[in-house]
Amino acid sequence: MKICTVSGQIISTEKNHRLSGYPLLALDVLEVDGTPTGEELVAFDTIGVGIGERVLVTIEGDAAIQLIRHKDAPVDAVIVGVIDEVELLDSEEAAHEN
Amino acid sequence: MKICTVSGQIISTEKNHRLSGYPLLALDVLEVDGTPTGEELVAFDTIGVGIGERVLVTIEGDAAIQLIRHKDAPVDAVIVGVIDEVELLDSEEAAHEN
Amino acid sequence: MKICTVSGQIISTEKNHRLSGYPLLALDVLEVDGTPTGEELVAFDTIGVGIGERVLVTIEGDAAIQLIRHKDAPVDAVIVGVIDEVELLDSEEAAHEN
Amino acid sequence: MKICTVSGQIISTEKNHRLSGYPLLALDVLEVDGTPTGEELVAFDTIGVGIGERVLVTIEGDAAIQLIRHKDAPVDAVIVGVIDEVELLDSEEAAHEN
Amino acid sequence: MKICTVSGQIISTEKNHRLSGYPLLALDVLEVDGTPTGEELVAFDTIGVGIGERVLVTIEGDAAIQLIRHKDAPVDAVIVGVIDEVELLDSEEAAHEN
Repeated sequence: MKICTVSGQIISTEKNHRLSGYPLLALDVLEVDGTPTGEELVAFDTIGVGIGERVLVTIEGDAAIQLIRHKDAPVDAVIVGVIDEVELLDSEEAAHEN
Repeated sequence: MKICTVSGQIISTEKNHRLSGYPLLALDVLEVDGTPTGEELVAFDTIGVGIGERVLVTIEGDAAIQLIRHKDAPVDAVIVGVIDEVELLDSEEAAHEN
Repeated sequence: MKICTVSGQIISTEKNHRLSGYPLLALDVLEVDGTPTGEELVAFDTIGVGIGERVLVTIEGDAAIQLIRHKDAPVDAVIVGVIDEVELLDSEEAAHEN
Repeated sequence: MKICTVSGQIISTEKNHRLSGYPLLALDVLEVDGTPTGEELVAFDTIGVGIGERVLVTIEGDAAIQLIRHKDAPVDAVIVGVIDEVELLDSEEAAHEN
Repeated sequence: MKICTVSGQIISTEKNHRLSGYPLLALDVLEVDGTPTGEELVAFDTIGVGIGERVLVTIEGDAAIQLIRHKDAPVDAVIVGVIDEVELLDSEEAAHEN
């Protein structure tokens, strides 16, 4: 799973008909603490998210296909949730914990 | 999903018969803003695109297989659409949005 | 398979309903000898692990999907076990062995 | 899909019985223009190619499995064709085209 | 497919029950000529190999799952064979061949 911020929208009129009805979004991949990694993704949106939102993305074909109405849609990345909050153990606590 | 430009054509006469009938194209992978990443891909074309066109590519076997007539075609990358436009949030807007 | 330490928890209220009921955890990927690689993962927990624990993670959709109750859950990484111990051959022994 | 040159043969007598009957070859991955990338692959051959030949390789399990007689053969890379020729758009033409 | 040397054993008592009965091994990935790449893998053993042996590994979930008794075992890497010998074309011969 990847955590990303939505950075834009991609318009593709001529495409496989099984992909119709899902917005195609540009995403910036984030580290768990919210820092951008510099990596970008392009994914279909099955949730209805907005520009700037922090989202949860599945980046594997088999898993991604499950959310598109057409079972045999040719997708490999899908937005599956909205991230509310990340609670990270700081490293001192981690040292105690181990 | 990857955004790419079509850079050439690859001729393979002797190949698995399930792959017949689909042009095999050379692609340059692009960042979302259109800058080439330097990465190349080789993919089958199920749309009918031309050299220089900006296309949407699925790079996962399970997903890619769906578009080839033979359900068990041995492919791992397929062109699934043509890109018309990319609308990116510029970073100042992004700062406001967050 | 990846060996990781659990570093935090990720809260996502609005998400695909098939993902409900599984904690979403932040993980630090480790080398086999326990050194962090610097890579992070986000995975669903099907075991019930705690912050700081060393866990075994499957990072492939097909495999990961198997452990979620909904067969068509859109996941690509799942915690599948807890690591007790790693016994490594030291390199001198390895030289003899070969 | 990857374009590769066959660089050698790998002998494995004791292996899963579903893998019997297919030569296991060492491959050098090429850029589209024929330059070696420095990456290597190990793949099963379902075509019958020779050392030094330029071949087309599928590198995804689902797709690769399709070509092996045993539907549940544990493979993740298979040679699926022979490359005859690569016709690349040179960059000046590309500039005109865009 | 990857060629690796077995470097150690990983003990995981509390794990998904479908993974029981297969040793979990630490592996060093090798280049085709036997040089370690520095990359490590963790894989289940379905062959019965020993520390120091050179093995053939499938690193894709779909393919890997096939060898575990439970069809829906959550694995993504499996040892599928033992490597006896690698016969590489040296680069001079390769130059002649092309």
